[in-house]
Amino acid sequence: MTRLLLGTRNEGKMHEAKGLLADVLGLELLTFLEVPFSDVDETGTTFYENAILKATSIGRETGLPVLSEDAGLEVAALNGAPGVYSARFAGQPSDASRNNALLLQKLEGVDERTAQFVTVACLYLPDGRLFMTSGTYAGTIARVPRGGGGFGYDPLFVPEGEHRTLGEMSSEEKNRASHRAKALSRMRLILSDLLRSGDL
Amino acid sequence: MTRLLLGTRNEGKMHEAKGLLADVLGLELLTFLEVPFSDVDETGTTFYENAILKATSIGRETGLPVLSEDAGLEVAALNGAPGVYSARFAGQPSDASRNNALLLQKLEGVDERTAQFVTVACLYLPDGRLFMTSGTYAGTIARVPRGGGGFGYDPLFVPEGEHRTLGEMSSEEKNRASHRAKALSRMRLILSDLLRSGDL
Repeated sequence: MTRLLLGTRNEGKMHEAKGLLADVLGLELLTFLEVPFSDVDETGTTFYENAILKATSIGRETGLPVLSEDAGLEVAALNGAPGVYSARFAGQPSDASRNNALLLQKLEGVDERTAQFVTVACLYLPDGRLFMTSGTYAGTIARVPRGGGGFGYDPLFVPEGEHRTLGEMSSEEKNRASHRAKALSRMRLILSDLLRSGDL
Repeated sequence: MTRLLLGTRNEGKMHEAKGLLADVLGLELLTFLEVPFSDVDETGTTFYENAILKATSIGRETGLPVLSEDAGLEVAALNGAPGVYSARFAGQPSDASRNNALLLQKLEGVDERTAQFVTVACLYLPDGRLFMTSGTYAGTIARVPRGGGGFGYDPLFVPEGEHRTLGEMSSEEKNRASHRAKALSRMRLILSDLLRSGDL
């Protein structure tokens, strides 16, 4: 079995990544519960920079292949904010209900509520090789939070063609079409190829 | 057909990329002969930075999906040089025979001649999404250039388990196992998935 460390401390992300990668043949998924790692300062100004930063830093610290991601919500009427600051929109420490409240406040009276979720996933291998995939999920921002599923902005995000928020959908439904599902399903293809060719 | 612009002016790279991607269903490959684009300053200090820089810059200029790559040779005894400076090792403009001569000169009397080729490929989509794959090719540096095939350092590079240099191998043989073949075959997986899901 090849060991792959999930480079996140976010339980929601960890849970979704496990669901999306659990059945990749020959891969043993580890989390920071088994292999602890230091916090990484997300100093990048793009999802790409932050995903590479996290995977590389945790990979160098632990000596393991690491899969990290950076994700966030881009709201058109806010010129792409909160973007890379999604998790700390209302300040540190990260607090989803305060973030959601701030987002609703900024969109008060705004009718153009188009938004997209973005996930960038980055795989670091101990020899320094990097792989990166991404996925987006188009939708709109609801007027009030609905549903207790998911995490982060999920209770406010209504996917295109849906009436429900992500908070009202099951994790199976969310994992079929979400930004994270798209980014990780493309990373699956790379992981499987690396394993098949003995290159991981 | 979805159009994909190959973001390189290097004829060797263009030829190999066409060979490796020609049969991806639904994809029409364009080169700078059909869609001209400006030169990009490769100011990055890593293959990753340069590949992202090139794909993003050419993509923004042309409005097309762009596949760029950065590649180079890392020689262990030279602490990874020439690395990102491989194409301009002996100065500008890029000249393969001068680069090869300089490499041989720096390795004169050196018996430890381990090296690897690295390719990092980056796909830019007009909505800003990026995908990145990489591939390496392990080998050693020959004492004299051999063969007229390939390009760049190929006449000096002897792949692991081979007696011949890449310059003595056919492009079909090189395309089976090379750094570029590995990076692009992994990018093929992503391209096919994007096309299949209507996401490109």
